[in-house]
Amino acid sequence: MTTVNVDLANRSYTIEIASGLLRRHNLFSDTVGKRRVAVISNSTVAPLYLNQLLNSLGQSGIATESLVLPDGEQYKNQTTLETIYDFLFEKKFDRKSMLIALGGGVIGDLVGYAAATFMRGIPFIQIPTTLLAQVDSSVGGKTGINHARGKNLIGAFHQPAVVITDIETLNTLPKREYLAGLAEVIKYGLIGDTEFFDWYEHNLTGILNRDAQLLEHLIARCCQNKASIVSADETESGVRAYLNFGHTFGHAIELGLGYGHWLHGEAVAAGMCLAAIASERMGLINSTARAAVERVIAATGLPTEAPVLGVDRYIDLMSLDKKVERGEVKFILLKEIGEAVSMPVPSEILRAILK
Amino acid sequence: MTTVNVDLANRSYTIEIASGLLRRHNLFSDTVGKRRVAVISNSTVAPLYLNQLLNSLGQSGIATESLVLPDGEQYKNQTTLETIYDFLFEKKFDRKSMLIALGGGVIGDLVGYAAATFMRGIPFIQIPTTLLAQVDSSVGGKTGINHARGKNLIGAFHQPAVVITDIETLNTLPKREYLAGLAEVIKYGLIGDTEFFDWYEHNLTGILNRDAQLLEHLIARCCQNKASIVSADETESGVRAYLNFGHTFGHAIELGLGYGHWLHGEAVAAGMCLAAIASERMGLINSTARAAVERVIAATGLPTEAPVLGVDRYIDLMSLDKKVERGEVKFILLKEIGEAVSMPVPSEILRAILK
Repeated sequence: MTTVNVDLANRSYTIEIASGLLRRHNLFSDTVGKRRVAVISNSTVAPLYLNQLLNSLGQSGIATESLVLPDGEQYKNQTTLETIYDFLFEKKFDRKSMLIALGGGVIGDLVGYAAATFMRGIPFIQIPTTLLAQVDSSVGGKTGINHARGKNLIGAFHQPAVVITDIETLNTLPKREYLAGLAEVIKYGLIGDTEFFDWYEHNLTGILNRDAQLLEHLIARCCQNKASIVSADETESGVRAYLNFGHTFGHAIELGLGYGHWLHGEAVAAGMCLAAIASERMGLINSTARAAVERVIAATGLPTEAPVLGVDRYIDLMSLDKKVERGEVKFILLKEIGEAVSMPVPSEILRAILK
Repeated sequence: MTTVNVDLANRSYTIEIASGLLRRHNLFSDTVGKRRVAVISNSTVAPLYLNQLLNSLGQSGIATESLVLPDGEQYKNQTTLETIYDFLFEKKFDRKSMLIALGGGVIGDLVGYAAATFMRGIPFIQIPTTLLAQVDSSVGGKTGINHARGKNLIGAFHQPAVVITDIETLNTLPKREYLAGLAEVIKYGLIGDTEFFDWYEHNLTGILNRDAQLLEHLIARCCQNKASIVSADETESGVRAYLNFGHTFGHAIELGLGYGHWLHGEAVAAGMCLAAIASERMGLINSTARAAVERVIAATGLPTEAPVLGVDRYIDLMSLDKKVERGEVKFILLKEIGEAVSMPVPSEILRAILK
């Protein structure tokens, strides 16, 4: 088992990474204590892992209730949040209760936000079951829901009590989702870890075959990268923004096509290629570096080209992004493979690359 | 001007208390900086003070927008919250923006919760215009909305950047609301400040006449009391619960009669009398102390008797309270005038006093 510490003063916690964790009894005893626990999952993950988890919790003498939500980004909204609240009131949960999020990023964000706001906040445990959630959304305490105006526009920072990452859950993850998760893995290399970027490209075949040993290292390294950034900047006033590399374009792609047509990671992959092109046009990186970004993304099996939405539509969609500050869109660009920088992109360059 | 510090590490802030603060230019410059500001008020307070405030902000070169909501506890809900979100999106507010809550406790809780959750949290300033908000709800960072299941059941802890308390705003406060605010003032004396309880009774005539000098002392002393409790226990895991003295009964009264029939402070006043009776029955205080509670509440012009709802209905309503832990209702009782204690009340005693 690999343990990654997320250092956030009195909100610090650990991420435990290994195969078969969901089957381990007593894994939760210290964290849960005498709390009642509501396990919240979705209709895809629950049939695979919910009983296993409830059994492990029960063996530890923990009282549980469970709620299964419909699966999909389109349910990450206020209506589903109300379903969670109603369930918790119905089952007489109180401020000393605890939630467990069993699922991917949508479940993590939704359940985390429910935990952040139910009776002004109760603790929760993340059990991410997708690669995307394991390397990204389960680390850092971002929780929230989508709004008609855009993704993740309503939310709160609420750190989990512990993150339990069982690598075995990746065996049942559809290939398309697995590959989409790798987009965020590539991102960590590009924005701050050249060595990891090289390791990734070198081991790509084994990674695509979901080799468990490679995955334990891969997930831990991503979590370490994210944890060190989050520790330095919990609420995203500075360097945490680098994690948004490829995301300003990516969110515009997701929103422009309608949520669910492209997976988040696919949109981020194409967004990273656009950001690499912008970085080259701005004179920050050379064509070799830009080509390396495209090469690794293509070899992973992810899209390198963004869909055609029209230049004006792209610019309009990006102006809705949370990263907008006083009307100016800040982009995360590359200074080299392994080093990010935040700056605006002149309108002419932006319009040229969006054509 | 009296300044009270609320000491909460990197979320510390000050409460500024004086007459005429809303007319002062440059009062907000340091706190607001270059942020755009949305001032959110209600239809009762806005006609009295909104222009004055917008003028002061404008004179300091601060860009503002304003939103006026309907007035009343019945609007402290998800629907009104969505109105605030929509307004902020419509006006293109972003993560570097700021909210100002101009109004009583409902506006403070609502706007504070909008600030806590809009784009995962933006800063806000509290300008409480009711006595209740000035001595209680504006201190401590509790924000939230009501839910069909009960009061303040959805919310977050989110500390303001600064609290601006202009005593002049109390001149326009209806008498009934002013008196209701005094219930929380009496509470601070009862749970932890004997000297203040005596000072209050001694100066009651002047206080009822809204003497500005007495009020500056009274508000500051309440804020100091609450600030020291909140600093010791920001998220209400221990001593902060003492602030709920009279509130478990009080919330049951409010919920049982339907929100809005009794003011919060009126319900708390009657609730404190019930808690004093329970304290006497439990052998914690003598009849002299219990009578002193009733005497001061009556002299203030607040109700000392709870409405008849039926014993079972009371017990059912109290079981919904957030203070319930693993099914057990914890009551805040008095050990003496000026000292609180948290403990369960045996069912027989509870049923007897609720008759």
